[in-house]
Amino acid sequence: MRCGDRSRYAHHAMTNTDHTHDPSRTSWIESANAPGADFPVQNLPFGVFSTPADESPRIGVAIGDQVLDLRAAIDAGLLDELDPETRCALHAPSLNMFMALGRDAWVATRSVVSTLLDASCPTVRDSDERRRAMVVPIAEARMHVPAQIGDYTDFYASLHHATNVGSMFRPDNPLMPNWKHLPVGYHGRASSVVIDGTPVRRPKGQTKADDAALPEYGPCRLLDYEMEMGFYVGPGNELGSPIAMGSARDHLFGLSLVNDWSARDVQKWEYQPLGPFNAKNFATTVSPWVVTLEALEPYRVDGPPRSSDDPPTIDYLQPAEAGAYHITVEVHLRSQAMREQDMPAMLISRGDFFDMYWTMSQMLVHHASTGCNMKPGDLLASGTISGPTDDSRGCLLERTWRGRDPLHLPDGTQRTFLQDGDEVILTGYAQREGAARIGLGRCRGIVLPAG
Amino acid sequence: MRCGDRSRYAHHAMTNTDHTHDPSRTSWIESANAPGADFPVQNLPFGVFSTPADESPRIGVAIGDQVLDLRAAIDAGLLDELDPETRCALHAPSLNMFMALGRDAWVATRSVVSTLLDASCPTVRDSDERRRAMVVPIAEARMHVPAQIGDYTDFYASLHHATNVGSMFRPDNPLMPNWKHLPVGYHGRASSVVIDGTPVRRPKGQTKADDAALPEYGPCRLLDYEMEMGFYVGPGNELGSPIAMGSARDHLFGLSLVNDWSARDVQKWEYQPLGPFNAKNFATTVSPWVVTLEALEPYRVDGPPRSSDDPPTIDYLQPAEAGAYHITVEVHLRSQAMREQDMPAMLISRGDFFDMYWTMSQMLVHHASTGCNMKPGDLLASGTISGPTDDSRGCLLERTWRGRDPLHLPDGTQRTFLQDGDEVILTGYAQREGAARIGLGRCRGIVLPAG
Repeated sequence: MRCGDRSRYAHHAMTNTDHTHDPSRTSWIESANAPGADFPVQNLPFGVFSTPADESPRIGVAIGDQVLDLRAAIDAGLLDELDPETRCALHAPSLNMFMALGRDAWVATRSVVSTLLDASCPTVRDSDERRRAMVVPIAEARMHVPAQIGDYTDFYASLHHATNVGSMFRPDNPLMPNWKHLPVGYHGRASSVVIDGTPVRRPKGQTKADDAALPEYGPCRLLDYEMEMGFYVGPGNELGSPIAMGSARDHLFGLSLVNDWSARDVQKWEYQPLGPFNAKNFATTVSPWVVTLEALEPYRVDGPPRSSDDPPTIDYLQPAEAGAYHITVEVHLRSQAMREQDMPAMLISRGDFFDMYWTMSQMLVHHASTGCNMKPGDLLASGTISGPTDDSRGCLLERTWRGRDPLHLPDGTQRTFLQDGDEVILTGYAQREGAARIGLGRCRGIVLPAG
Repeated sequence: MRCGDRSRYAHHAMTNTDHTHDPSRTSWIESANAPGADFPVQNLPFGVFSTPADESPRIGVAIGDQVLDLRAAIDAGLLDELDPETRCALHAPSLNMFMALGRDAWVATRSVVSTLLDASCPTVRDSDERRRAMVVPIAEARMHVPAQIGDYTDFYASLHHATNVGSMFRPDNPLMPNWKHLPVGYHGRASSVVIDGTPVRRPKGQTKADDAALPEYGPCRLLDYEMEMGFYVGPGNELGSPIAMGSARDHLFGLSLVNDWSARDVQKWEYQPLGPFNAKNFATTVSPWVVTLEALEPYRVDGPPRSSDDPPTIDYLQPAEAGAYHITVEVHLRSQAMREQDMPAMLISRGDFFDMYWTMSQMLVHHASTGCNMKPGDLLASGTISGPTDDSRGCLLERTWRGRDPLHLPDGTQRTFLQDGDEVILTGYAQREGAARIGLGRCRGIVLPAG
């Protein structure tokens, strides 16, 4: 296999864009070239899938509405340009080994796969046998959580979200004194991270009404979503050895959408003094395709913005480089009645990941600043992405201002919090003039009644 | 192999004690019969070890000052009475599979191993070859974290601890309104759980002095231990399916000592509003030998105590059976100077696990009450075990009352919080008339200077 000259990318350190980003390139998989496609040849996100014909989970790359089966491509000798360690990692049933290999392996893989899928490359394009063996419609693929997530950590990095929520729970003291000095975060529950499309059962939990003498245990009444950005750790650090800002990005593999489902009534009662626990641990949904930092390089910008009121950033969290990304995130809602009437989902908010106060690098570095060891496949999430406007608020608690301003759905009903049968659909994409659109796909879940 | 009649225990549901608890029994391993031995033939805790001669981690049972290598015993055909699935699980490099099998397999294994190690059983006792193959001095074994811990959760279940600490951090409001209604807990960090003996590097972290304008990043000044009881989950539950109190104990495999190292100055600055994060995630030490609930059966009692001031226990947390355990826990401290002068460690506190307000079953059931899925090998910890008296307080924050009442060490120095070179040694044991002593062994760590 030789399609063009790619050797110069084999050990390319990611400092800017390369031919894999060229927006004029197209793929021989036509659906990848459609305007608005999430997965053009410039994206190449990684996921883990299986099929009815072969139920073993394996790594694939999304291209248009298809998956390129990397295990099959390796078996056919099409990735022989990659070193044996990289091929071994890509032949695994999860992305952990590949995540552990680091940027050189990721860049080399991106380059080889990009070439294979380029419109001009006949290797797979012109072989019915190879296409049958290694190209699968996404519609026929069952997706799996892409990595074994050792630990899941959730941050709280949006100033707008923290201020809005804080003002509801603590009117006198919305933003804690520490908030602008460190990315506040807490450990989440890894076992209940589920993949896009998994139904989410309304949790039961202990709650207490303000006017009740005693708490009760029953179905959550204030079920909410949180629109977040997740990011997977690549190579880890040894216990006791913090990560410096200058090398933070080398430890970050890529991004997924995250719905951090939240039981607000449980949260309100339980969260003091040790933070959210049962309010969050019944389900966290991730999108299946992990979009690499390489793919998002055209969208990396300086950030986050600071105002003259903001305190100086402490040294160990000082940005070493541009570390923010312009990524549009959207929440769509579709009730059961809307599905039955074939109505499309309703867009209920749109925000920009750029609006976060803290970058992914700062969250990672703060997390490891005590020497906490991060491991390949660990999932960190940003916290709810909320912007300055009403319609950029990333959870219902804020979007309806705790139920004061219900949303009006096209089926004639109102929403303050989620109802049984509601489907929440998160989407995300980066898009600008002069660069290819990089989509994050979808992160969906339908609420089932409490058991 | 036939040593006595054990068939009647093969499917014994644990409802009371059986011949394996008989305090008159002894082992042919003489050190197991010494008064005060932690690991008599009535205990039989499980751990994962390796040796210089064979570095592969494998499951063993502690007996006196020796380890019985279960992999070697299986290879020699000595556990053939167990079903193949149980033998397979015991042949693994971690306890997760065995934990997943459930009580019948645990009881059957306990019975077979108990018989093999009984003073009257010649099978291994009288074979030099077998003793060489499967009996290893603990002093020569390298111990490993006994299970792959998917998630680690830390509770806060001691009323004395919560009240003491609460009164320091929130003098007006020491105990939150929720505290007596649910076992308050938070998700911890699984990646930094380390085994007994692992040195713990003093973390750096972000802290802010009360009179400082800005926070700073540097070595933790208020390093503390927390004496806790850890317990490992056995068979898990499916996501969306809570665990009932009546079956809670079937999901609990056994206990270890846990030192939840804490950076108090980091904690004070970071913990609001989402709870402890970096203050805890730099290291959590576990003792190597997991003492099963079966072994502790003679110490299971009704509990926890409630006073007339306490609110009624909500239905889903109502005890279905006796669920508390009398287990003495001790903290010992040894400075570098004490080690250099060959002074023994100093006992600085002694408490009773019985004093916790919430039982292990209640913590587990509350954790899963939203449908959160627990997995075999998950580690839950009780929170600091503190009793009503000064010398039963399980952390330095309480023991020295935030530094007001320093401890005086035999080397002539004082302690408010931990100094570099200090070794913290947790021990635990259950002991009473008419039952064999069941020890938990030790959980040790020496503080290294910040890096």
